[in-house]
Amino acid sequence: MGLIVQKFGGSSVKNAERVMNVAGIVTETYSKGNDVVVVVSAQGDTTDDLIEKAAEISSKPSAREMDMLLTSGEQISVALLAMAIESLGFPVISLLGWQAGFQTDSTYGSARIKSIKADRLRAEIGRRNIVVVAGFQGLNKYDDLTTLGRGGSDTSAVAIAAALHADRCQIFTDVEGVFTADPRKIPGAKKLQEITYDEMLELATLGAQVLNNRSVEMAKKYGIELEVLSSYKRVPGTIVKEVATMEKMLVRGVTKDTDVARLSIIGVPDIPGIAFKIFSRLAARKINVDIILQSVGRDNTKDITFTVGKANKDSAIEALRSSFTELEGKDIICDTEVAKISVVGAGMESHPGTAAKMFEALYESDINIQMISTSEIKISVLIDIADADRAVNVIHKAFIPEE
Amino acid sequence: MGLIVQKFGGSSVKNAERVMNVAGIVTETYSKGNDVVVVVSAQGDTTDDLIEKAAEISSKPSAREMDMLLTSGEQISVALLAMAIESLGFPVISLLGWQAGFQTDSTYGSARIKSIKADRLRAEIGRRNIVVVAGFQGLNKYDDLTTLGRGGSDTSAVAIAAALHADRCQIFTDVEGVFTADPRKIPGAKKLQEITYDEMLELATLGAQVLNNRSVEMAKKYGIELEVLSSYKRVPGTIVKEVATMEKMLVRGVTKDTDVARLSIIGVPDIPGIAFKIFSRLAARKINVDIILQSVGRDNTKDITFTVGKANKDSAIEALRSSFTELEGKDIICDTEVAKISVVGAGMESHPGTAAKMFEALYESDINIQMISTSEIKISVLIDIADADRAVNVIHKAFIPEE
Repeated sequence: MGLIVQKFGGSSVKNAERVMNVAGIVTETYSKGNDVVVVVSAQGDTTDDLIEKAAEISSKPSAREMDMLLTSGEQISVALLAMAIESLGFPVISLLGWQAGFQTDSTYGSARIKSIKADRLRAEIGRRNIVVVAGFQGLNKYDDLTTLGRGGSDTSAVAIAAALHADRCQIFTDVEGVFTADPRKIPGAKKLQEITYDEMLELATLGAQVLNNRSVEMAKKYGIELEVLSSYKRVPGTIVKEVATMEKMLVRGVTKDTDVARLSIIGVPDIPGIAFKIFSRLAARKINVDIILQSVGRDNTKDITFTVGKANKDSAIEALRSSFTELEGKDIICDTEVAKISVVGAGMESHPGTAAKMFEALYESDINIQMISTSEIKISVLIDIADADRAVNVIHKAFIPEE
Repeated sequence: MGLIVQKFGGSSVKNAERVMNVAGIVTETYSKGNDVVVVVSAQGDTTDDLIEKAAEISSKPSAREMDMLLTSGEQISVALLAMAIESLGFPVISLLGWQAGFQTDSTYGSARIKSIKADRLRAEIGRRNIVVVAGFQGLNKYDDLTTLGRGGSDTSAVAIAAALHADRCQIFTDVEGVFTADPRKIPGAKKLQEITYDEMLELATLGAQVLNNRSVEMAKKYGIELEVLSSYKRVPGTIVKEVATMEKMLVRGVTKDTDVARLSIIGVPDIPGIAFKIFSRLAARKINVDIILQSVGRDNTKDITFTVGKANKDSAIEALRSSFTELEGKDIICDTEVAKISVVGAGMESHPGTAAKMFEALYESDINIQMISTSEIKISVLIDIADADRAVNVIHKAFIPEE
């Protein structure tokens, strides 16, 4: 018994049947004597439908009005879920983001939560109500509605858990938990019982798409224990916490990210300040750069290679070209037929052989490595996109024990 | 130049094209130097779609959660209209009911406006913004969303006009204004240039369906000049005000109401208190009674006949039957094949011949009158529903001069 925050995404409430399913999970938790706060996203394709409605009217709607539009999506979900819970005979009340006390900054479209005035939430819990809160949204200092950006409902749930000192925050999704690799593609992929915040952050960034990064960061900051679990199957999920037991695995997961473009500037002068010039230009355009590789100087020139998200490719090339003369570079090469394969695991820093084991698996499958990047808890390689699935498979086999 | 409140109903904003049309009307008004506040309803069938979504989940959702659900409809409209106005290059901001300061009582589903805290509205107008406000909705003292009930957006518009001392409140609809009869059925029907509040109230009650009654009452109370006009054709509409010029017409309009059921209790004792007993029972069930007719007593019994809306027919019969013994009535007769035809006009009280003229027109067409009811500014008759359209036609011909 305790206070449990449960979050359900758009696909978990996409129609009446799924809403009733969620109502079943929520009331079952409540019936066990827990206080329950439920955070929901907009139904299924609602957000996309609303974006389409906006696009029919304006090619460039203001971010403020987009937030006014999009926040209606969760409003519909919370009302419907509250009705479903009512129909099962439980006390319930729905609250919009602002009613639940979400105060954000004014960055429409991707606002940050500044604080949660949890008085109303506490009062409703005190009345033994199940509280259904609209995720993804808040109110800024001008009393205008804001959205927290994609994946924001996870953050809403964790923020409520932190504000109310909840005993657990459960994130319900389409999958049963966090796996060592994509279980649809890698037959040997295993569900993890536990994982650390840091490992989860690396996995999220690398494309595991289970939990939003901001929510994991916030959970880490406030020490909120997360559980990722399925809204379809009633089985235990994966617990995300500070220290996780290792389950005899060196790595937690193998991930593939194909949203990568590799850019190279060939033959720039081998003098100080070049890297600064290049990357400050990209930063000015708010382009996130991932792996960076600089060749050893030769003939007083060097090559600089880096990766960006595919969506930023053209903007990055434009930024480089506009300063081409100044950089005196000789050529810009762009390759989008690449994939980033990573192994993640907090244990690997104390196991020096991890990188070697990964490279060996690739070598044995005749897969060429284009770039390498490492951190304390992950090793990433850039390879040809055609080899990506095969690479995940062989690396997974090398690290995750078959049962 | 002045402050103009414009209200657009659901059909006026039902799709992107209609939203752009409204944006055109609004910005044209603004471009003439006016301050403009726009009140909009939910798009087309949105409200019905939301009601259906609720019905899929619960047969009896709570009124509070229904309001939470339904208020999302206008939220979508205001955002889209604001985007449309933005796209035309005008300064604009959308506000929800609560942001515009609508404070209501807590009768979810048909809340009454208690006050409007118009600070935000005034501030936005002061910034020369076109302000787009969600109609039909407000906030109660618990900080929960409420709706004003059907037709509530008209009331929202008039309330804003009153709070801001607007120079005019324009209600845009599908029709060009208030007509002397339904122009789709009566070829000689004329658009009125002006009409008084009281006349409008009688016409609205009688089925003209142009303006919501509560909004006319509020306009009368605060002396707000209303204009009813078309969102399709840019032509002057009908002005509703305290004193209207008569345009040489004795009556303002002839209306037909077929949502009428006639109930008769035959042979009740001719003693005091009978009428009280009958109508207090109906009042307890919140059934509105329209025309009441009591026969002259005979054989120590009398007949009492009255009309109610068709939706209340069964409930009314039940109320009467449950107390049948006590009333010692002999029989209850119900007829739903009736129509109420009315002539409305503030001038008729000083023209004693009005009723005679109406009855003569009916007599000449061999139409039998079942009941008669009169007020200072209207005369209504109950007739067989089969004669209804013919009756409107001959009465209209008798009163409204052909051109």
